[in-house]
Amino acid sequence: MSNDTANKATVTTPSEREIHIERVFDAPRDRVFAAYTDPELIPQWWGPHGTETVVDVMEVEAGGSWRFVSRGDDGETAFRGTYREVTPPERIVQTFEWEGMPGHVSVETAQFEDLGERTKVVTTSIFHTPEERDGMLGSGMEKGMNETFERLDELLAR
Amino acid sequence: MSNDTANKATVTTPSEREIHIERVFDAPRDRVFAAYTDPELIPQWWGPHGTETVVDVMEVEAGGSWRFVSRGDDGETAFRGTYREVTPPERIVQTFEWEGMPGHVSVETAQFEDLGERTKVVTTSIFHTPEERDGMLGSGMEKGMNETFERLDELLAR
Repeated sequence: MSNDTANKATVTTPSEREIHIERVFDAPRDRVFAAYTDPELIPQWWGPHGTETVVDVMEVEAGGSWRFVSRGDDGETAFRGTYREVTPPERIVQTFEWEGMPGHVSVETAQFEDLGERTKVVTTSIFHTPEERDGMLGSGMEKGMNETFERLDELLAR
Repeated sequence: MSNDTANKATVTTPSEREIHIERVFDAPRDRVFAAYTDPELIPQWWGPHGTETVVDVMEVEAGGSWRFVSRGDDGETAFRGTYREVTPPERIVQTFEWEGMPGHVSVETAQFEDLGERTKVVTTSIFHTPEERDGMLGSGMEKGMNETFERLDELLAR
């Protein structure tokens, strides 16, 4: 069984303001958690294929800020937020804001489930309004997310 | 009729995630809008009695940031956010985050209604969860808000 078929993300919408994503990675939990929290590793996988991401700020602790600048085919853009909770290697809660729509802030909770040699990452995003949630779903998020997860597969396989 | 009885704020909760506040001020709309948007005026009224507020950042335009540092009896704290919309003299939409609970972000919409020599300010705050809304209601918000509005009355009377 190749990774391409085994580790597909599932995207569901449990309420009108939420997006729920599950994805399995072929690596132990500590390594997956490190990929999410190490500023040296973020540029190696964060963003769709062809994206160059620069970590501008990344204070991985409760109350800390983060800001990533991404350069791709469409030019340069940036994302930012605040860490609400960082509980290694289990859980990260953070806000997420695209600077193209400043002040539209979602809250992302990522749970890292230990499956032995594999890890399931369960991410729930909650938006202020159904319209903001639908805007994210309509933005090509799923394609970008799948490419991002493929890049993370590649990093974890190295 | 004195201001004390005439201009009392009304606080309602139209949904489980919202706080709705209405307050009339004895000044024309342009002056009330200026009090909300002029960094020179903010320190003269922002916060309960005895508070000293310093404007750290205040970029009053869509996408701009704001950050106010407040010193009072309980020590120093700070508040911050992003302006989503600034439409003089009618409307301000901004995020609001107390740095004591970083990553808990509400969205405040302030509408300035022209009543001739008076102005009604209608503010709606929407929180991510009912728990965050209830936390704000339980924080002594209403007392602090009424004192803040009294200070704004005094500024507008000068």
